[in-house]
Amino acid sequence: MKAEVLCVGTELILGDTINTNAAYICRKLAKLGINCFFHTAVGDNPQRIAHSIDLAIKRADLLIVTGGLGPTDDDITMQAIAEFFKAELVFNEQAYEKIKNFFASRNREVPQKARKQAFFPEGSEVITNPTGTAPGIAWDVQGKHIIVLPGVPDELYIMWETFVENYLGKFSEYFIEKKFLKFFGIPEGSLGEKIKDLMACENPTVAPLVSEGQTNIRIAAKAKTKHEAGILIDKMQNEILSRAGEYLWGYDEDTLEKVVGSLLVSKGLTVSAAESCTGGLISSRLTDTPGSSGYIKMNIVAYSNEAKINTLGINAGLIKTYGAVSKQVAAQMAQNVRELAGTDIGLGITGIAGPTGATPQKPVGLVYIGLSDRSRTEVHKVNINPGFGRKTVKHRASSYALNYLRLFIK
Amino acid sequence: MKAEVLCVGTELILGDTINTNAAYICRKLAKLGINCFFHTAVGDNPQRIAHSIDLAIKRADLLIVTGGLGPTDDDITMQAIAEFFKAELVFNEQAYEKIKNFFASRNREVPQKARKQAFFPEGSEVITNPTGTAPGIAWDVQGKHIIVLPGVPDELYIMWETFVENYLGKFSEYFIEKKFLKFFGIPEGSLGEKIKDLMACENPTVAPLVSEGQTNIRIAAKAKTKHEAGILIDKMQNEILSRAGEYLWGYDEDTLEKVVGSLLVSKGLTVSAAESCTGGLISSRLTDTPGSSGYIKMNIVAYSNEAKINTLGINAGLIKTYGAVSKQVAAQMAQNVRELAGTDIGLGITGIAGPTGATPQKPVGLVYIGLSDRSRTEVHKVNINPGFGRKTVKHRASSYALNYLRLFIK
Repeated sequence: MKAEVLCVGTELILGDTINTNAAYICRKLAKLGINCFFHTAVGDNPQRIAHSIDLAIKRADLLIVTGGLGPTDDDITMQAIAEFFKAELVFNEQAYEKIKNFFASRNREVPQKARKQAFFPEGSEVITNPTGTAPGIAWDVQGKHIIVLPGVPDELYIMWETFVENYLGKFSEYFIEKKFLKFFGIPEGSLGEKIKDLMACENPTVAPLVSEGQTNIRIAAKAKTKHEAGILIDKMQNEILSRAGEYLWGYDEDTLEKVVGSLLVSKGLTVSAAESCTGGLISSRLTDTPGSSGYIKMNIVAYSNEAKINTLGINAGLIKTYGAVSKQVAAQMAQNVRELAGTDIGLGITGIAGPTGATPQKPVGLVYIGLSDRSRTEVHKVNINPGFGRKTVKHRASSYALNYLRLFIK
Repeated sequence: MKAEVLCVGTELILGDTINTNAAYICRKLAKLGINCFFHTAVGDNPQRIAHSIDLAIKRADLLIVTGGLGPTDDDITMQAIAEFFKAELVFNEQAYEKIKNFFASRNREVPQKARKQAFFPEGSEVITNPTGTAPGIAWDVQGKHIIVLPGVPDELYIMWETFVENYLGKFSEYFIEKKFLKFFGIPEGSLGEKIKDLMACENPTVAPLVSEGQTNIRIAAKAKTKHEAGILIDKMQNEILSRAGEYLWGYDEDTLEKVVGSLLVSKGLTVSAAESCTGGLISSRLTDTPGSSGYIKMNIVAYSNEAKINTLGINAGLIKTYGAVSKQVAAQMAQNVRELAGTDIGLGITGIAGPTGATPQKPVGLVYIGLSDRSRTEVHKVNINPGFGRKTVKHRASSYALNYLRLFIK
C-alpha cells in the first residue's frame, strides 16, 4: 500500500500558512506502516488540483486530500475531485442537518453558503466533523482509496482519530516504530562517522537529524508486530549507545528542561540561576515543566554590572579585573545565587549575545557557565556560532547550560 | 516566470519535520511576484528525486530545491541533480577551504566526509553558506534555473537573504507588497465585522490571520512598481486604522518586546520585572532585542513564596490574606522590584500557569499584572484559556504583560 498526501490551499503556496497537516498525516501513516513517498501542496485551482490527483493516483493506491472544503466560493476541492472521477455531487440531508445543528448550538443563523458543504461525490462515505462545519469523505473509486479532510488542523486531527485511523487499519500490513536518540555536544558529522555502517542498514533504518544545534538519531523499524519492531529498535539503540552513549541526554519527546527537572526531582535537589546573557531564558525553560515549583525557588536576571554587584553580591573588583564576561564572574554568580536562594545548586551564566558588545578577546557567542553546590564549583567555556543571531545565541547558550547542569547533577 | 519548490528529506515524508522551508520560500517568491503553483516533498531517494525534478521543470522555469546537502551518505541531493542533468560533480577548492575554516574556527578537526560538500555540478555557481558547512548552488541548465539550498532553516534563510533574493530580482515582473497590522485585545470575529466590506476587495486584498492569540490583518497589493503597491497599501491601512486603530500595537516584523523596547528608549526609561507564573519569559522576551541592556537592569523570578518574601520583600501577611495570586501581591511585586532594581518602571506578574495549582476561586489561566512607577500603581486581571496548556498560558500571559507595559509607558 502506497499513499500520497495532497494539501490544497492558496495560503500554502503563498507561504502564509505552514503545512503542518502534511507532517501530521505522514507521521500517522508511518505509524500504520503505510508508505508515503510524496506530498504536494497546490492552490485552490481546479486544473492544478486535477493534475495533482492524476499524478498521485498513478503513483499511489491511497490519496489523502486536505483543505478547500469551506463554504466560500474559492473552496472547490470536493467539486474538483468529483469532476476528476466523473461523479455527480449529491446532496446529503443528514450531513446538512448536522451543519444546521452546528450553527443552532452557537445561536447563529445558518449562512446560505453552508448548504454547499453537504454535497458529496455519489458513492462516497461522509466523515462527520465533530468540531466544524466541513465534513470529509472516504471514497473507493476506480480501484483507489480517496480520503478528503478539512484543512483546519484541529478539525482534521479529531476526524483522523475518530474515523480515519480505524478506516486505514485494514490497509496496515506491518508496524513502523520509531525512536529518537538525542545527543548534545557532538556535531552531526562526527556522530555520522561513528555510526556510518549502521546508516546503511535497511531495517531498522538509522538517520541523523539536526535540530536547534542538537543532533538526534532516528531509528525506524518495520515488523509484523509492534513487539518485533521494538526488539529491532532496542538492538540498534544498544549498538549506537555503545559508540556514542556519552553524548546522549534523552529520547523522543524529551526536552533538556524536562530531563533536568526529572533528575532534580529524583535526587531531591533544588536549583537557582543567575543569568546575564540568556536574560531569563534558562529560568523560563526550567519553568515550562509542570511541577517545576518543586525545584525552582528563585532566579535572578542580573543584566547590568550594578545588578550583579548590588543584588548578586559579585565582587566589583572581579568585574574590573576580569570583565563581566569571565570565568571568575560566572563562578561567583553560581555561588552567590545558590546562597541567596538557599538552593542545593547554583547556575551562573555570562556571555555576549550580540550583535554588539564584543571585543577582540571576547567575541559574540563567548559564554561562561558556572555551576556550584556545597562542595565544588566548575566553569565551562563555550563558543557559540554568532551567525544565527542574538536569539539563537541565547537559545543555544541556554541549552549548553541545561546540559552542563544535567551532567553536574548526575 | 513560474517557480516550484522541491523539499528533499525522508524526515519530511515521515512527518518528523514540519516543512517550514516551503512556506518561507513561497512567501519570498510571492513578494518578488514570481508565481509558485506547487510544492512537493520527497524522501532522500535518487529515483524519486529525479522523478520530482522531471515533473517540476516541465511545469516551471525556476526550481528551488532544499535539503539533502549534509555530509552523510543519505544526503544525495547534489548527486541526484547532477545525474538528472547529466553533469559531472566537480571539486571546488575554494568552497572546501571555507568548510575547513568553519571547523578550524571551532577548534574542530575536519571530518573526512566534509569533503563531499565541496563537489558541485559543472557549470553551477556556488552559494556560500555563512553559518554552516553545506554550500548551495545557482545553476542555469537546459533552459531552466535551478537553485539548491541546505535544509537547515537558519542556514537557508541567511543564504536566501545574502544571495538568492538578489539573484531572483531579475525574474520579478511585478511587485507584491504585503503589510501586516498587528492587534491586541480584540478577537478575530469582532475585528472581522469591522472590516467585512474591505475583505471583499481584490487589490489590495485584506485578510485577518490569528496567531498565538493575537489577531493580525494582512494587506497585500500587486502593482508594476514597489511605489504603486505601497500607495495601495497605505490607503487601505488608513481605512482599517480609522475603524480599529485603538487596538493596533505594531506592524510586520514587530514584536511586542521590540515595540516596548523602542518606547523605553525614546522616553529614556528603564524597567524591571518580578515574575512568578511566567517564570522568566517576560525577561527573556525583553532581552531578545539587541540593545536591551540599555533599559533592562535586573529581573527577578520569584517562584516560591519564600523568594517573594525574602528577596522581593513582599509582605507575608499579604500573601496569607489574599494569596500569592492576587491583585495585592501583583501590585507589591511591581513596586518592590522597581525599588530594588532602581528602575523607572516595575512590572509584577503572578498567576496560575497550570496544569495544577488551581482552586475553585482561582482557575488555571488567572493572571494579575501589576505596573508601577514613581507616582502610580495599576493592576490588570486577565483570564487566559487554559485549554492550550502550560506553555501557551505562560506565553499569552507574557504578551498581555508586555501589552499593558506598552500602554503604561505611553
